[in-house]
Amino acid sequence: MRSPLRKQDFPVEKVRQYLEPGPIVLVTSQWQQQRNIMTLGWHTVLEFSPSLVGLMISSATHSFDLIRRSGECVINLPTVPLADTVVRIGNCSGVSVDKYALFDLAPVRASRVRAQLLGRCHANFECRLYDDALVERYNFFVFEVVKAHVAVSPKHPRTLHYTGDGAFMTAGRMISRRSLFQPGMLG
Amino acid sequence: MRSPLRKQDFPVEKVRQYLEPGPIVLVTSQWQQQRNIMTLGWHTVLEFSPSLVGLMISSATHSFDLIRRSGECVINLPTVPLADTVVRIGNCSGVSVDKYALFDLAPVRASRVRAQLLGRCHANFECRLYDDALVERYNFFVFEVVKAHVAVSPKHPRTLHYTGDGAFMTAGRMISRRSLFQPGMLG
Repeated sequence: MRSPLRKQDFPVEKVRQYLEPGPIVLVTSQWQQQRNIMTLGWHTVLEFSPSLVGLMISSATHSFDLIRRSGECVINLPTVPLADTVVRIGNCSGVSVDKYALFDLAPVRASRVRAQLLGRCHANFECRLYDDALVERYNFFVFEVVKAHVAVSPKHPRTLHYTGDGAFMTAGRMISRRSLFQPGMLG
Repeated sequence: MRSPLRKQDFPVEKVRQYLEPGPIVLVTSQWQQQRNIMTLGWHTVLEFSPSLVGLMISSATHSFDLIRRSGECVINLPTVPLADTVVRIGNCSGVSVDKYALFDLAPVRASRVRAQLLGRCHANFECRLYDDALVERYNFFVFEVVKAHVAVSPKHPRTLHYTGDGAFMTAGRMISRRSLFQPGMLG
């Protein structure tokens, strides 16, 4: 049993710092006694405040049902050491497998939703359904991030960015262009 | 005057290879005689075929008006050498500045839309509006990629991934986990 990473609360209106760069994420869900984990790459930030994110969750997945019914999920941010697990989670179905038993991700109770936080992920964003207007047409859910937890270190997590065909781009070095920004455009 | 990169046609159902990793993009637009370029980081893939992508385009921008009126745009994929330009484009307004005159991006005529391709970007995706159901509520446009052009090299472009506060994560090394995928999950 691995331990969860040490986390601190993080302002929900700043989750773009972790989601805008486009990482693959692990989405946890729970409805009644059923829970599941899925790998997801199709998401976008939509608004700072309220903190809105859009997720395309395929209706062919078990997670879709749990999230549709509960109106909740947690977006978890895995890093390079979890690459194998990220792929394995995306290549089995929660209908036939208990992914919590199969993968040692140190689940932790969330504070605002029933779905659990994956303690070994760098960050965890608790989400409540905000708008389902595009769920029927595109499986596109608009969620509000209601609580955010981020590991105390490192500052720049080595996230995974899926490119298809089994290949991931991994987060490289950071560059700053702060000096070229107008003050109102920062933040 | 810089030359455009050498490009080849690319299958539109595979643009996730470039967009799913979450790069910052430059969006070009044209309506009647007005054209503009914007920097955009809030987007997601929505479907392989038809090739659908969702873009959050702030209604406060000049580009919003041109795209709303024309129902078209081009998503251009800049890389690290264009970092300064990406920031400068995002920090001025097309209402007061002709960004095509200010920035030497080697514009090229598109084949399916009136907005232009930025020749110095690694890839260019010509888009037509597919669904505006969420434009009023979230400034979220669903576009269909109708034509894609990608530079013949390099295979893995060094894209820019915005994290807020003037800082970008740059694309790092690639890792493959192909062997862990079920055959039907690749592609």
